[in-house]
This record gives sequence, structure tokens and C-alpha cells, in this order.
Amino acid sequence: MINAVGREIPDTIDGYQEVVPFKGAFKYIKSGYKAHSLYRTTFGREKVVSSIKEVIRRVSLKDGMTISFHHHLRNGDYVTNMVLDEISKLGIKNLKLVHSALFDIHEPLLQHIKNAVITSIETNYISGGLGEKLCNGFKEGLIRLDEPTKFLTHGGRARRIESGDTHIDVAFIASPIADIYGNINGVDGPSACGSLGYIFPDAEYADYVVAITDNLVNYPISYISIDQTQVDYIVEVDKIGDPSGIVSGTTRITTSPIGIEAARYAAKVIEASGLLNDGFSFQTGAGGTSLATAEYLGRIMIDRKITGSFGSGGITSYFVDLLDRGLFKVLLDVQDFDLKSVKSLKNNPNHVEIGASMYANPRSKGCVTNMLDVAVLSATEIDVNFNVNVTTASDGIIMGGSGGHSDCAAGSKLCIIVAPIMRERIPIVVDKVLTITTPGETVDVLATERGIAVNPRREDLLERLKEAKLPLFEIEEFKNMAYKYCGVPKRPEFKDKIMAVQEYRDGTIIDVIKELSS
Amino acid sequence: MINAVGREIPDTIDGYQEVVPFKGAFKYIKSGYKAHSLYRTTFGREKVVSSIKEVIRRVSLKDGMTISFHHHLRNGDYVTNMVLDEISKLGIKNLKLVHSALFDIHEPLLQHIKNAVITSIETNYISGGLGEKLCNGFKEGLIRLDEPTKFLTHGGRARRIESGDTHIDVAFIASPIADIYGNINGVDGPSACGSLGYIFPDAEYADYVVAITDNLVNYPISYISIDQTQVDYIVEVDKIGDPSGIVSGTTRITTSPIGIEAARYAAKVIEASGLLNDGFSFQTGAGGTSLATAEYLGRIMIDRKITGSFGSGGITSYFVDLLDRGLFKVLLDVQDFDLKSVKSLKNNPNHVEIGASMYANPRSKGCVTNMLDVAVLSATEIDVNFNVNVTTASDGIIMGGSGGHSDCAAGSKLCIIVAPIMRERIPIVVDKVLTITTPGETVDVLATERGIAVNPRREDLLERLKEAKLPLFEIEEFKNMAYKYCGVPKRPEFKDKIMAVQEYRDGTIIDVIKELSS
Repeated sequence: MINAVGREIPDTIDGYQEVVPFKGAFKYIKSGYKAHSLYRTTFGREKVVSSIKEVIRRVSLKDGMTISFHHHLRNGDYVTNMVLDEISKLGIKNLKLVHSALFDIHEPLLQHIKNAVITSIETNYISGGLGEKLCNGFKEGLIRLDEPTKFLTHGGRARRIESGDTHIDVAFIASPIADIYGNINGVDGPSACGSLGYIFPDAEYADYVVAITDNLVNYPISYISIDQTQVDYIVEVDKIGDPSGIVSGTTRITTSPIGIEAARYAAKVIEASGLLNDGFSFQTGAGGTSLATAEYLGRIMIDRKITGSFGSGGITSYFVDLLDRGLFKVLLDVQDFDLKSVKSLKNNPNHVEIGASMYANPRSKGCVTNMLDVAVLSATEIDVNFNVNVTTASDGIIMGGSGGHSDCAAGSKLCIIVAPIMRERIPIVVDKVLTITTPGETVDVLATERGIAVNPRREDLLERLKEAKLPLFEIEEFKNMAYKYCGVPKRPEFKDKIMAVQEYRDGTIIDVIKELSS
Repeated sequence: MINAVGREIPDTIDGYQEVVPFKGAFKYIKSGYKAHSLYRTTFGREKVVSSIKEVIRRVSLKDGMTISFHHHLRNGDYVTNMVLDEISKLGIKNLKLVHSALFDIHEPLLQHIKNAVITSIETNYISGGLGEKLCNGFKEGLIRLDEPTKFLTHGGRARRIESGDTHIDVAFIASPIADIYGNINGVDGPSACGSLGYIFPDAEYADYVVAITDNLVNYPISYISIDQTQVDYIVEVDKIGDPSGIVSGTTRITTSPIGIEAARYAAKVIEASGLLNDGFSFQTGAGGTSLATAEYLGRIMIDRKITGSFGSGGITSYFVDLLDRGLFKVLLDVQDFDLKSVKSLKNNPNHVEIGASMYANPRSKGCVTNMLDVAVLSATEIDVNFNVNVTTASDGIIMGGSGGHSDCAAGSKLCIIVAPIMRERIPIVVDKVLTITTPGETVDVLATERGIAVNPRREDLLERLKEAKLPLFEIEEFKNMAYKYCGVPKRPEFKDKIMAVQEYRDGTIIDVIKELSS
């Protein structure tokens, strides 16, 4: 089958559910009944269990089950490794790992894959270091999984869990604070990480929910992110994470002249778009160029005396500044990248924690990304049809994943990709991206160091930008410039075996990722 | 069948589900899968609908469906009447009304019952004025319902909805503020009522959720009680309620010498119970005698330099004072009775809004009432087995209902009933209560103006109170005093027809209420 972005998708994929090819960003509309989680009668007060080993026994974890984790501790997370270690020691095998994102710190996972403790993975993101080891392991035949890894979007993961497509037997929640009856949050304690939004669906729908904390306190805490009605057991451990890997002290704006130019153009596009009025809403990623766009935009908002409604998504100190300066009324926060954001979430009532489903689930009564005016996003590659790849590098190595990329692109009225034309002699603007993460129909503008390309679907926008006398190009011109300097990009060789599936947020397959040839 | 509190319960009841007789407060333990609510794909931004009439059309309300409402606007609620009026005009019939509590202001309901618009009711409470009209209507054969009215506890209502025993087609939520995408709260706006906790289960499990507000604002609000992923439509109306009926300016401590004496004894019981240590937790009702107990208790806590952990339930200014003075660390708030409480909920981060399921649902992973040390509750009647009636007056007229009574009695380590021995020449302490709302096995102490009676099940407590030299009586002695002054209470005559069922919090039948003989 050829899907709506021109990719060939097999009729069936070994180990994967029924294949539904991508049909277009707004074409696959479903309704039905959500999954239903367990209830049980509880009269007692005891939920604290002595060890991870003991809790694994209590939740009756068995071969073939599905376990889940969150990534709010990012590259400082100790909990995933700790739990998988105990599971491995107990000889439990053949588990499905449902993780919101995997980082380099999760390298012990490779051993658990080799030992068939983990035989299937669903995730929204795999970091470059881990992705490389994983891809090379597959390439060299050293590791295998029973099912292709499912790459999901943040909204898509919430959708899978809510709709029952992914049933979680046990969710293990790294908890910066937990009281003895299972109320938890992410803003208090030595391992504070901020919002716990990505694990909200797991807490709601998993059969068993275990909070793992290094900060067990008396009942009750008052800032409650996930409450006692969702948590079965609490385990206290020495440390759930390494603070230096959890949040950075500061997030940084790019200092690269190329990034700064692209950001400046992106801000000008927003200014000229007709959307920058009171009530304006906005999201960027945490990358340096995106942050530079936020910085420029803030200046424009001050000049034009504009008060925005909300900023959303992963929150950085730059967004907190916009809130503190009154440029936005509310932050809707699904993840925090630095200490200032964590503190703001804890203390500012206009800084609001939201779950992944409210953030971005397309199969909901309406998610936050639906309400976005502008999203500024990055790209590893973008092609002449405005399709974006943030999943694989041009050499075929996994080094990312959608996260909220496709969700924000689809929901926003104006989606701007900020990216250089090329990066380290590798073209970023290409004829065809290696992997399609986000479909071009949801991308409106590419802002580069050289100027701006507008998706031809957006004639209205093109007119506005022309009037504003911004430097406009056809996207093919950017591609040609890149190819002129770098040559036509060489593509890696692949085996036939599908290693991973990039699911679009609605559950259709937008692309597949094959094993690299050895 | 004779149930565990000695009441005769028919094997089957016309129009009622499978009859399960009450087995004991902690005997009916169930686990299973919760109900599952609908999901649907939403890409749009439009949720505001022009009128109640139009929204009834949009949610496809039809004959025989179930609709629900909350009572947080109490005797100031305009929304229930407004919606039933429109439904009636549209000729829709035979609906089940699931209301967390009905007040005198809902008198137009009688007409809707007569017209068969409403043919079945589930509620946690019916006020005396309305209850009298309802009972007399039944007695005189002027009105009828197809099913016996189900009286539920606050926790039991959450349980029914969560477990799917009650399926709600459309929940209509009176909303003191709503933004245009369906985020709502109860603390802002001219009709502010405080917590919206009792409607949380409805918002989660109803097929359609409609917010009705007199305070529609731009997206997004930052204090969110029920969020956009749960709300399908919003309707703006002139006024959702009468502020004077919603919250009282102040709640008042009793000035009756009899009430003050009972309250003083209740406080002394708590002091002597061994439970009054740091971390102590406490709930009272909003009645004048209960509040007096809270006041005495506060003084003792100050004297003994004790800091409590939490106060819970329906919150009054007396509890807010205890929080503000640092006597409790947290308030867990499911309902607010006065303006000071509403303001505190809005502004104090240690004053936390909770839903009905977290508050009191026995079929959950653990509710707040499970963590209570002491609950101080009232009684319309209490019998020599410590069974309590708060549902019917001694003449058989419905004038209340459990609300959280049975939930708190079951969850707390020490449940104290404060009540006079008699009231207006009617015995309160009786041989057999007319209707059992709360089983005696969950009640530990009766504190009256004359002294204290301890449930013989609590020998440990009896010893402590003896040591403290409190005036102890057998409960039969109180009964005898009451009967000596008032005579043996005359009991009303009933028809065979069961008018209402008092469900215990776990879903078993603890008692039935029959139609009065004409």
C-alpha cells in the first residue's frame, strides 16, 4: 500500500497490529469506548512496600506483560534501570516496555533486550546515543525484538493507552515526592523534575500503578499531580535520579549566527501572519533556535503591546519569563526542562500542569494543541513537500522521534519549521526525507538562515508574507542550495526487515524504519 | 431476607436492580473493570452552543435516558430547573434523574414527575421541604415513579458511576466559570460555589458533558477543576444560581446550651481517645453542633501544641480558620458551605479540591475517608445498636440522606455522633431507628448533652474514657431518659409499596423506605 504521504507500507507487518496506512492528518476519525481500568475495594491504609522486588511480587508481574515508565527524569532517570534490573533477576521475560522516551542513561536496556527480558518497545523518542547502539545491534544481528518498535507521538501514546490499543499491566512511576497513601507530584524533593504529564494516562489506565520515590512523606501532600485513587503501592529507594541529568540549570538560546537568522525570520513570519493579536497562543521546542524565536517574539509582543493567552508544551525558563512579564496569561505544562520552570510550576497558579491526553490526544474531546495559534518546531530533515523527519539521522540511525512534533504541527494554525538549509555538510532540506515523522500538509512555513519558504497550500499566508516584504523562496530553491554545497545526500542501505514503525498521532502508519544493511 | 442490621429486605424490588442485602460495613468486597467512557476525535475549536434547547438536540437526548446534575449551588441552583424545563418543553419523557442532592428550590421537579418527564431518581440527599411534598404526593397517589428512589452515599454515588452501575447519558454541570473550550471551576464568578467535587465522576463517565455557565471567558482559565477533555459543549445563560442560596455568608456555631454541651463532650472524647497527636485528621459536618466540636477541638489542639494533618469533607470557615492558624496542614475539600471557604479554596494552595471518588468511594485504590482519625457526625435518630438515621424524620417523611455520613463513619478510626437525647419532645435516642442510614458497627460514640455512650464493640475506647473520668452511660440509659420525657415514639403507618431504597456505600441495601399510609 502507498499511504497519503507516498510511502510504501506493507499490508501486514510481523508482530504488529492491523496495519492502517496514513490517510491524511485529519482523515482518520474514530469514536468508541475508552479502555476501562480496574477498580478494587480498599479499606486499609497500607500501601508502602519494602522493596521493588516485593512490589513486583505484589502486582503479580508475569512473562508477557506490559510495563510502563515516564521520561520526566530524562537522562538522569535511575528508575527504569532499577526496575528492569530487578525484573531481570527474578527471571521474568518477554515483557513489552512502554516508555514515553528513552535516553542514553537507559543503555542497560540493550542487555535486557539480549536476554529477552524486553522483547517489544513503544516509545515517543530514543536519544541518539542509545539509538545508535540499538540500530547497530540490529544491524549486526546481536539483538532482536519480537515486534517492530512503535514510535508514537506524545498525543498518540495517550491515545493508544486511553483507547485500549496499548494495555499496561504495571506502570512504574518515578515520583519526586509521594505521601504514604500514594499522592505524588514532580515539583518537590531532591529529584524534582516538574510536570509528570506524560505518565497521566498510564496512571489512569494501568491495572497496577507503583510509585517509586526517594522522598516519602506523611499524608497528605497538597500539590497532587497523580492521586491516591490511581496508585496501588509506593516503594522508597535511595535515589530516583541524578539531578544534573534531570533538569539543566538553564536552557540556552542558540549563539550560532545561522540559528539566529532562522529564528529572526520565524519571528517575522509570526508578526506578519495576522495571528499576533491579543489572545495569541504559542509553543516552541526547547532547542536553541526555537528559544531564540521565543525571545524575538517576546520583544515584538512588548513593542506591539500584545498579551498572549497561553504557551504550552515543554516549558523552559524563557516561557516562564514570558509568563512572569505578563506576555502570556497561562502556561499549560506537560514537561519542564530547567529548574526555573519547575519552581514556577510549583509556585505560580497560572502555570498549570496538564496530562498528555489533554495536551495532544487527537481522540479526545479537544486537546490543547488544537487551540494553538503558532508552533515553532525543528527538523532533522525537511523535504520539498514539507514532510519533516525528526526520527532518524540521514544515515538511518534512530536519534529522536516525534514527541509532540506532529501533534503541534497538526493542531496549530501556523506551524513554522526553523532549520538551517544544511548542517555539517549534510543537507537538511532534501528531495525526500529518509523517514516521515510529520506530514507536510500540517507544516506551513520553513524558516532558514537564507529566508522563508511557504507551503503552497497556504496561499493566504504567502500573500501576507509578500506584503511584509520578507525574503521568500520556493522550498526547492533551498534544496538546490543545499545540494549545491553538499552534493546529493547519500542514502544508507537497508535490509527488508522492518525495525520500527512511525505511527502518526491517529494510529495510522506514516512510515516504517528498516534495519540497516551490515 | 434479613440483612446484617436486622432489616427485612425483599428478594426482589420492582424496578430495582438485583437486590444484595447489607452484609456488614466491610464485607462486600468487589473488584472488576470500571465503566468506560466515550472517546471521539476532535480537531475543531467550537464547543459553545447557543442555548440549552440546542445542546439537548446536539447530545441527542432521548426518552429513557439518564441525566445528571450536582448540588454545589444548593438551594440557589437554577440549572436543574432550567434544563428540566427545556426537556419538558421538547416532550422528552421517562428520564432517570441522577442528582447529587435535591433541595427545596427543585420543587418544579414534582411537576416533571407528574408529567412523566422524570420517572426515576438517584440522589444522596433530599431536603425536608421537598421530601415532604414528595412523600405526601406518593401518599396521596398524586405522583408516582417507575422505580424506587435510590438514596446513595457520596462515596456510593461515585462508586455507582465509576463501576458502571449507573450509566449517565448526559451530565449537565452548573459552572461558575467556563472557558470557551470547556475548562471549568467553581471558585470564580458571580455564582461561585467552591469545590465541584461531587460532579467529578459524572464528568469522567457520562457519554456527554455539558457545562452551563453565566461566566463564559476566553481560553484558557488556569484554575481547572474539570478540564476540556471531559466537556463536550458549553452553554451560556444569564444566571446559574442565586448567590444567597448557594453559599451562606457565614456558617454558625450552635448557640443552644444542649448542643454546646454535646459538642464539649465530643471534644473531650477526642482528647481522651489517644488519637489527638501530631498528624491527627478530622472531619465534621456543617451543622452547628459539629462546628462547635471543631471549635472546642481547635482550642485543645492549641493548648496541647498539636498540628493535625488534614481536615476533609464539606468545608466551612471554621475549618479554614484551623488551616490558617496552622492547626491543620491541608484541607481536602469536596464541597464548600460559605464564602470564606470558597475564597480559601481559590487562593490557598494547601486547600485542595478533591472529587467524590477520591473523597469516599469504597471501590477505589483508597479514599480520603479511609485516612480519617475522627469524624463527628449528626443524627436524626440513633438506636441502641448505634445505627443512625439521617434519611427520614420520625414521622416517615424524607428529610435528608446519607451524604458522606456512612462514608466517614466507616473510614474513620473514631466516629462520634453528636446529638441531643431528644428534640422538640421527640426522642432522638430510640430503640430502633425508623430508617437505617449508617450501620452501628461503624459508630463508636454517642455524645449528648447528658454525657457519653460508647459502642460496646469498642472496649479499648471505653477504658480510655473511663480513665479520663468522662460521664459514661449505656446508650439504653439515654433511650430510657428520652422515652421518660417524650413517651415511646409513635411510628407512622406504611403501605407495602417501597418508595425508596437506602443503598449502603458498597451497593448493598441497608434499608428500604415505604410509602406512608394515607
